Amino acid sequence: MKTTWMRAAAALFLVNQLFFSAPVVTRAQDATATTQAATLDGYTPDESAAERALEDRFRAVPRADGAREHLRQLTKEAHLAGTPEDYQTALYVRDRLREYGLSAELREYQVLLPYPRTPTLLELVAPRRERLALKEAAIPEDPTSSSPKIVPLYNGYSATGDVTAPLVYVNYGLPADYDALKKLNVDVRGKIVIARYGHSYRGVKARVAEENGAVGCIIYSDPADDGYMQGDVYPQGPWRPETSAQRGSVQYGFIYPGDPLTPGTPAIPGTPRISREQAASLPKLPVQPISYGDARRLLEPLRGPVRPNGFQGGLPFPYHVGGTPDVRVHLKTDMDIRTATIWDVIARIEGDAEKDRWLVLGNHRDAWVFGAVDPNSGTAALLELARGFGELLKQGWKPRRTIYLCSWDAEEQGLIGSTEWAEENANDLKEKAVAYLNVDVAVAGPNYSASSTPTLWRLIRAATRDVRDPKTGKSVYQAWQEHEREGQPEADTEAGTSPREARIDPLGFGSDYTAFLEHLGVTSLDMGFGGDYGVYHSAYDSFTWMSKFGDPSFAYHAAMAQLWGTIALRLADAPALPHDYGDYADQIRDFVNETVKTAQRRKLADSFDAKAILDAAKELSDEAARTRAQRDELLDTVARSRVRADDTHPRAVARLRKLNDSLLAAERALTDPTGLRGRPWYQHQIYAPGFYTGYAAQPLPDLRQAIDDRNTANAREAAQRIAAAIRRAAQALRDGRESN
Amino acid sequence: MKTTWMRAAAALFLVNQLFFSAPVVTRAQDATATTQAATLDGYTPDESAAERALEDRFRAVPRADGAREHLRQLTKEAHLAGTPEDYQTALYVRDRLREYGLSAELREYQVLLPYPRTPTLLELVAPRRERLALKEAAIPEDPTSSSPKIVPLYNGYSATGDVTAPLVYVNYGLPADYDALKKLNVDVRGKIVIARYGHSYRGVKARVAEENGAVGCIIYSDPADDGYMQGDVYPQGPWRPETSAQRGSVQYGFIYPGDPLTPGTPAIPGTPRISREQAASLPKLPVQPISYGDARRLLEPLRGPVRPNGFQGGLPFPYHVGGTPDVRVHLKTDMDIRTATIWDVIARIEGDAEKDRWLVLGNHRDAWVFGAVDPNSGTAALLELARGFGELLKQGWKPRRTIYLCSWDAEEQGLIGSTEWAEENANDLKEKAVAYLNVDVAVAGPNYSASSTPTLWRLIRAATRDVRDPKTGKSVYQAWQEHEREGQPEADTEAGTSPREARIDPLGFGSDYTAFLEHLGVTSLDMGFGGDYGVYHSAYDSFTWMSKFGDPSFAYHAAMAQLWGTIALRLADAPALPHDYGDYADQIRDFVNETVKTAQRRKLADSFDAKAILDAAKELSDEAARTRAQRDELLDTVARSRVRADDTHPRAVARLRKLNDSLLAAERALTDPTGLRGRPWYQHQIYAPGFYTGYAAQPLPDLRQAIDDRNTANAREAAQRIAAAIRRAAQALRDGRESN
Repeated sequence: MKTTWMRAAAALFLVNQLFFSAPVVTRAQDATATTQAATLDGYTPDESAAERALEDRFRAVPRADGAREHLRQLTKEAHLAGTPEDYQTALYVRDRLREYGLSAELREYQVLLPYPRTPTLLELVAPRRERLALKEAAIPEDPTSSSPKIVPLYNGYSATGDVTAPLVYVNYGLPADYDALKKLNVDVRGKIVIARYGHSYRGVKARVAEENGAVGCIIYSDPADDGYMQGDVYPQGPWRPETSAQRGSVQYGFIYPGDPLTPGTPAIPGTPRISREQAASLPKLPVQPISYGDARRLLEPLRGPVRPNGFQGGLPFPYHVGGTPDVRVHLKTDMDIRTATIWDVIARIEGDAEKDRWLVLGNHRDAWVFGAVDPNSGTAALLELARGFGELLKQGWKPRRTIYLCSWDAEEQGLIGSTEWAEENANDLKEKAVAYLNVDVAVAGPNYSASSTPTLWRLIRAATRDVRDPKTGKSVYQAWQEHEREGQPEADTEAGTSPREARIDPLGFGSDYTAFLEHLGVTSLDMGFGGDYGVYHSAYDSFTWMSKFGDPSFAYHAAMAQLWGTIALRLADAPALPHDYGDYADQIRDFVNETVKTAQRRKLADSFDAKAILDAAKELSDEAARTRAQRDELLDTVARSRVRADDTHPRAVARLRKLNDSLLAAERALTDPTGLRGRPWYQHQIYAPGFYTGYAAQPLPDLRQAIDDRNTANAREAAQRIAAAIRRAAQALRDGRESN
Repeated sequence: MKTTWMRAAAALFLVNQLFFSAPVVTRAQDATATTQAATLDGYTPDESAAERALEDRFRAVPRADGAREHLRQLTKEAHLAGTPEDYQTALYVRDRLREYGLSAELREYQVLLPYPRTPTLLELVAPRRERLALKEAAIPEDPTSSSPKIVPLYNGYSATGDVTAPLVYVNYGLPADYDALKKLNVDVRGKIVIARYGHSYRGVKARVAEENGAVGCIIYSDPADDGYMQGDVYPQGPWRPETSAQRGSVQYGFIYPGDPLTPGTPAIPGTPRISREQAASLPKLPVQPISYGDARRLLEPLRGPVRPNGFQGGLPFPYHVGGTPDVRVHLKTDMDIRTATIWDVIARIEGDAEKDRWLVLGNHRDAWVFGAVDPNSGTAALLELARGFGELLKQGWKPRRTIYLCSWDAEEQGLIGSTEWAEENANDLKEKAVAYLNVDVAVAGPNYSASSTPTLWRLIRAATRDVRDPKTGKSVYQAWQEHEREGQPEADTEAGTSPREARIDPLGFGSDYTAFLEHLGVTSLDMGFGGDYGVYHSAYDSFTWMSKFGDPSFAYHAAMAQLWGTIALRLADAPALPHDYGDYADQIRDFVNETVKTAQRRKLADSFDAKAILDAAKELSDEAARTRAQRDELLDTVARSRVRADDTHPRAVARLRKLNDSLLAAERALTDPTGLRGRPWYQHQIYAPGFYTGYAAQPLPDLRQAIDDRNTANAREAAQRIAAAIRRAAQALRDGRESN
């Protein structure tokens, strides 16, 4: 599961991921190029030099052939969460971590997991009877593709059902698509809908279908979005072939992710479970993913009106929306949704001066099938990073802060392993967590991309300047920026109006950072190298695919280990944390301005107090500047005290720790324990997944939702709540200084 | 031949036309709604009331069933220019005009016309030998589609040639597409290229292929642009079916249109002819149009690199650019390009007070095949308009000015009938022409659209408010505006930032107005009702198609006759011409600002004096306001003198005529007898077709070309020339007032 960074195509599109984040352009930042010699942010010059030397030693360790071997081992067998093969990968990861000198343990949870009891039956029953194959063909060039253990095509948490009804084509299944159908007097009530993947999380497609009264939902990969229209198909090229379908969860994780029966609490013995009927994250209708080869059999006979604008896909006939009684479909799903054990692997590197401050790195390990790209490219990178940290430990390094390396399970079903662990350790994390650094897909190609809270923008940009991009030999930063510019309109490039800094997206709903950021308020990032990745959640996401297309040399796996480790070392060791709330305030201002524009268009701009949010952001910005000034002063004191060997040093260090704590408290202060409207698990007031759109982050979520709903009372209340959260964050910074 | 107004699709595209105009958004104008009762622009209140009564009588005449019968007669047989069937349509038109009481004559020209001697042979020779059908299938529901007289698929003025070479797919065949291929190291020298229709005039595709060293050029209609991806195909729907190809001229009419052997002079006996080798408007390579059914046979085997971004079309496989020696094509064209006679039909309604001022209405009559939409929907409208004028004449009406109704021949080959007539009457037209009103496709659907010089914007908007839209029962203006808004992004609509006035495009290179406006400097318009029109230049552009899809009731044909006639009556009878140079100045300012932006992006903004053009536009704007003020004063004087019966009236009328003449002279002053760089036939300094892009109008043509060429000396010189032309126009207005 993971954002897939697709190459910029004429028709831009996004392949779904479990909960996915779409690119949102953020403002250009000052391009203050850091050179090798520059002092690391949050370090004194001496400490910086030492840290850079340490980093160099670290970055020399991760090896491409090491990553290749990890990936080969991890992808030998399909390893769906909760299966014996999944357990074997947990042991592999634990044993490698131990071998590298880290202490690592399995952590089990008992969670509700979805499996197909019998493969789904899907057939056209009128105008002719035709049963669809629902099977990804074995490909001779790819040995694992013929494995008998490949799980049948299904959507996780689809309901069991047996329905026969007319079929309606609903395009991407967005609320706007249903609006377009209503204009054509096409009603989906009592019908089966067929939606194409893209533009929303598949669980949103199921949810919107359910809300519109559909009795079943089929989701397929259209060749315009994810198939031959993108390029050569596997095994000739990296794109999705005719029989391939995208598995994936349809859990309503935008309400809450994790184990459906233990929202907010860890799924361990003794935790009470709610009933399945109470579990708001479970869909109530059968949902089934199919290939475009199969979809063609259903779509071509459809009648009814010709598709509205934007509905045509890449199959070679004019799409019709259907809904007429003469084209009917029979969908029978038989799901085995049962309690099963999952295994997170948790390694801990004990910190030194600040061992009660935690830096958490995570990647999930479970896969729908072999998961070479998603997620085990990330697992391979994590293991090479661990090897590097192991080397440093052997050389006597002790990180200032405690580092966790986590290999999550059951992310694919709904971010379960990470959510349960975060819920179990919620109090510790709220007190101690410095940041959460996620890598899901480490490598699908050569194009770096990142999402994060604005606190970490500077750090990400600085670190990517210090890691080499394998293909170009330039820095990752430079390659990243140049690739972004290629994707921009000529006009912008010519005018030099393209953002000077490479873009970092807001975090949405994409992977295991969700519980850390959006439930607990832990500053987070997520990153990976993307590319032409057309085998997402299929049996072809294999070691062979990676070796032919994704990263034949495995150099990008090593680069990710270097980069992830570099960021981690800087955060783990920095005397002063680099978290920046000036960028955060700027980002919030942009979010507010966008929201005001939308509200103005809808004549709702008067319904809430945007100025109060902007004032709060200004306050946050001012406090951030003061905190940074005090921090720099204290770092300077530390640096000078070392030279003079006077007694200011310990006091300055203690004061720096107070400042550091205030930087953590500020992100925490952006959460509100009452949570978002109708989904109390989501507590962050700035970042959350969109409830309906399923698009990426929905910044200022309750305000945006209120505006979408045209509910002025909710908008007013949400704006007050957001402004209060930002003022609390500013206050946290102030307290950190004033307690000094 | 004609702009085809396509429905706004997710992927916006333009079907080519001979010389086509793409939509360019013009600035919103003041939405001063004219009611029935408002005084017509350029009339005194009394005269306005009388004119409105006359218009009402006129608009009662055009009949849907009359138009249907004309169309049936005109489209019985294929009537390619210069054929006996074409001659029969000339007689039909002449005889109807005479029957309605107008004097009408044929006017012959002897011009170079292209015919296929034998049908083209096109075959794949490697990797397998396969001859393509190159034939539009007979469709049982459409009786004329099986006619033996349908001309084979060919491109007018294609060279005769016999070439066998590797094939390269060049997307739309734009210069930028060749640039993209060069980045892939794909060279078309010595190869045959295959381009898809769209985004440029097909003659530009041929020209760019020729300049890049290709030895042959195949042009096909891709289903993404013009086929099943747009909707149901004929006969189920209005879109292009699998075997249909778009015929059309590839004359290099952007150098000069009309008879290739008599540029600037009429093709009549005694006019010296240049040699074919000297004729710069003739392509030198074989060019052939094919269907997407045939194109699939050529494109699917292509190897070489996967297509760059933007190259993928709607056929169901990943496009490759080819160029490898293992896929070769044999193209053999055998053309009979010979001198032939064509027949314009010219009717003249003698003017009264100002018979030496001419208003010219024109529509072409010749068609590639049956031409029900293009152009005979316009011919049917012209004949119903003529019936209306005939009725008025019988009731005693005499227009103030002389009106010409023209049925042009050989437009399809290169605007030949209109160009030769305009060249023959150049001196009269320069002195006398008030305006040229073109209708090519009158009806392809229900969506009104117009292009014109800004002089006529107000008139067009006012007239469309006074004609009823058949489908909605609202005014044409209102239906037009509402349809435009539907096509706009929700954001704009919600914000109310969509232009308040319906958009009128600049005139480009689309139809028979070219010689009038761009050679002679006659204020012009072009208009039609567009829709889902997928049979352009095919054998299916038939009476059956029109009856099933385009205008089943023929009410839009009648509406076009009413609207065209309303505009004509207002221009023919107005004591004061409504031509507005304030709008013209605004339009020029917009063009300059756009050009400056482009130049800035290319760091060429300093190379020319934009301010001089803007200053000249300001001068024009000021003069326009003064002229309008004096005009209104004079109209007031006339109105009062009628009441008082004093002697100011004749003098005021004479002074109005001077003002009128200055309004004509101003447009003429925008031409420069030295013409545009490298194409002296084009004399207008504001409007011309783009030389390479083939897009629509290329406003400020020589300046834009210089910037595209990054030629600073040319840019400086062009800007000076443009500024001088605008100052001349301002001077013309000043002279008109001061001579008073």
